Amino acid sequence: MSNTNTILDSTTGPLRSLLWGGDHLVMLDQRLLPGEIVNLKLYTPEDVWEGIHSMKVRGAPAIGIAAAYGAVLGANSYPGDVSAEWVNHVHQTCAYLATSRPTAVNLFWALDRMKLAAEKLASGNQNITSLNEGLLAEAHAIRSEDEEVCRQIGEHALPLIQDGMGILTHCNAGGLATARYGTALAPMYLAHEQGISFKVFADETRPVLQGARLTAFELQQAGIDVTLLADNMAAMVMSKGWIQAVIVGTDRVAANGDVANKIGTYGVAVLAKAHGIPFYVACPLSTIDLSTPTGADIPIEERPAEEITEGFGKRTAPSGVKVYNPAFDITPHEYVTAIITEKGIIEAPYPENLKTLFAE
Amino acid sequence: MSNTNTILDSTTGPLRSLLWGGDHLVMLDQRLLPGEIVNLKLYTPEDVWEGIHSMKVRGAPAIGIAAAYGAVLGANSYPGDVSAEWVNHVHQTCAYLATSRPTAVNLFWALDRMKLAAEKLASGNQNITSLNEGLLAEAHAIRSEDEEVCRQIGEHALPLIQDGMGILTHCNAGGLATARYGTALAPMYLAHEQGISFKVFADETRPVLQGARLTAFELQQAGIDVTLLADNMAAMVMSKGWIQAVIVGTDRVAANGDVANKIGTYGVAVLAKAHGIPFYVACPLSTIDLSTPTGADIPIEERPAEEITEGFGKRTAPSGVKVYNPAFDITPHEYVTAIITEKGIIEAPYPENLKTLFAE
Repeated sequence: MSNTNTILDSTTGPLRSLLWGGDHLVMLDQRLLPGEIVNLKLYTPEDVWEGIHSMKVRGAPAIGIAAAYGAVLGANSYPGDVSAEWVNHVHQTCAYLATSRPTAVNLFWALDRMKLAAEKLASGNQNITSLNEGLLAEAHAIRSEDEEVCRQIGEHALPLIQDGMGILTHCNAGGLATARYGTALAPMYLAHEQGISFKVFADETRPVLQGARLTAFELQQAGIDVTLLADNMAAMVMSKGWIQAVIVGTDRVAANGDVANKIGTYGVAVLAKAHGIPFYVACPLSTIDLSTPTGADIPIEERPAEEITEGFGKRTAPSGVKVYNPAFDITPHEYVTAIITEKGIIEAPYPENLKTLFAE
Repeated sequence: MSNTNTILDSTTGPLRSLLWGGDHLVMLDQRLLPGEIVNLKLYTPEDVWEGIHSMKVRGAPAIGIAAAYGAVLGANSYPGDVSAEWVNHVHQTCAYLATSRPTAVNLFWALDRMKLAAEKLASGNQNITSLNEGLLAEAHAIRSEDEEVCRQIGEHALPLIQDGMGILTHCNAGGLATARYGTALAPMYLAHEQGISFKVFADETRPVLQGARLTAFELQQAGIDVTLLADNMAAMVMSKGWIQAVIVGTDRVAANGDVANKIGTYGVAVLAKAHGIPFYVACPLSTIDLSTPTGADIPIEERPAEEITEGFGKRTAPSGVKVYNPAFDITPHEYVTAIITEKGIIEAPYPENLKTLFAE
C-alpha cells in the first residue's frame, strides 16, 4: 500500500478508480474517501479479489475493469511455457475472481471476455510473454471502452437535463464507479460543461454511504451544485417539488427490464412514481444480462450486520440485535421510465426493446 | 451528571426516560444509548431546555413531561413571596422552555397546562411552598397520565396485532419516548405479554438513529423479536411480503389528520400505500392540535448539517458539502389508515372525527 499523488482529471475531479501501474493494478481505496486518498498497489489476483470483496473498488463497471486486470495479474504469474496450460491458468484465475461479489453482472461479463481473449490468443501459438501482453491489451480495451461508453451514455442522457432542474441520485454511479465520467453522473458532468444550471440531491446511501462519501465528493470537486440527504429525506424533497428526475446506475438489468441496484433504489423508484417524477437507469450494455430472465433471478448479496451496527467506527445499535443487510434490491421494470445506454435511450416494452438493442 | 443504577421495569425494559429526584429531574441521556446508560440530574430550567434541545430526551410525550418538570424547577427558584410574581415567574420559565424545540405540540400543551395550573393555584392564595408543591403535583399528573394513556393506546391497538405478523416502525415511539410503554410500541409490549408471536422491523432512522439505538434496544430488552434495517431497506422488506402493518408515533397531528413525525415517516407511508399495507399512527390526544389546520401549518425544525456529515464521531462526507437536514416530515392524512389514541381508533374523515373525539 502506498500514498501516491492524486491524478488530476478535469472532467470527473481529481480521482481515478483504477489505473494500470506497469506490473500492478493501482486501486483507489474508496472505503477511505473522502477523508483519505490512498491508491493501493495490487500485485496478485488475491489482492484484487479482496479489493472487490471488501468494496475498496465498487460500482458495476469498475468491478469489471478491476477483475480484468486481476486476470492479467494471474496470467503474469504463470511460470511455465505451455500456452494450453496458460489458458487453464487464466480460466482458474477468472473462476476465482468471479466469487468476489455475486450481483454485478459486469464482473462475469469482463471475466468471460478475458477468458475468450486468452483462448483466442493461445490459438495463435504465441509465446507466453506475447500472450500476457495480449491479455493486458484486452484489459486496457475494457477500461478504455468503458470510458468511451460512459461518455456516450452522458451524451444520450444530456437532453434530459434542463436549466433549473433538480435531480436525485442514489449511491454512486459516477466516475469512481467506472473508468471515468460514470453512468448516472455522466450527463451531469456534460451538462455542467455546457453551462446548464441544475441541482443534484445525493442520498447518503446507508450503510456504506457511497452517496455521502463518493457522489457528493465527486460532484463537489467538479463544481456541481450538490446537496446531501439522508436516504429517508428523498420523499420529503420530492413532495416539495424540488426533484424533476431521478437518475441511478445499476449492477444488473434482467431481460425483462427489472433493475438490480444498490439497496434503497427500489424505494426511490416507488417514491418517484408516487410523485410523478421520471426514474432513469443509466448503464452500459455490459450491465444488461439477457440470460437473466427477471429480477427474481438476480442473486442479492447480503453483507455483514456490522455495516449497519458499527459502520462508523463506533457501535450504534445494541449488541446481538438481528440485522437484515441486503446490498441490493430489485426495481421492477414498471417503475423504470427509461434505460440509458451507450446506444441510446430504451423505453418499455423492455423484453422486446432490449433484445433489439443487442441485435443491432 | 452522574451514573446511577438502572431502574428495572418489567414492561418496557430496564430504563425510564424521566423520573423526579426530589429537587431535580432525572433525565436518561438517550444520545448515549445503547452504549452507555447515563442518568443526568437537572436542577434548572436551563438544564432542561438544553436536554430537550440537544435531544438527550426526545419523543413528543417525553418532551412534554420534561418541560413540565422544567417549569417546576423554574418555580422552585422563585426567591420572593408574592404569588402574582410567582405566576409571572412560571410564565417566563414556560415561555423560555417553549423555545427548546418547535415541532412537538406536546411541549406547548404541557407548558400551557403548567401555566394554567400555576394561575389556578395562585388564585387560591396559598404560600409559595404550597404553590410549588401544587405545581409539582401537576407535573407528576402529566407524567402518570401519560403512562396510563400509553397503556390505553396499547389496549386499543392490540387487536391490530395478530400471530405471525410483521410490523415495521420508524424512529422510536416507545417507552423511551414517553413516561412508559410508548405509543407505537405500546401494543407490541401488550401483545408480547399475551404471548402473541410477531416480528418487528425497526428502521435505524438516520441521522440520529433512534431506531437502531432506542427501538431495537427497548424491544430486544423486552424479548420481542426485532430486526434492524437501514431506512432504505423498508421498501424491499415490504415487497417481500414481510410487513403486514406499519405503526409509528407522531409529534403533532393537525386538525385535518396530517401527521408530523420523524423525517422518513412520509416515505414509509407512501411505500406502505404502494404495497397495500395499513399505516397506523399512535398518539395521545395531547399530540393532536386542532388549532393547527393542516400539516403545512406545522413548523419543521431543521437541524445541523453535522448530524449527517459527522454523526458517528467521524466525518463521512466531504467538508463544505451542502446538506438538507429536516428533523420531521408531514404525512398527508390520505396516507393514514387510522390514528390510535387513548380514546380509541379514529379513521377518516379526520376533520370531523377528530373534532368529535375532543367533544366527547
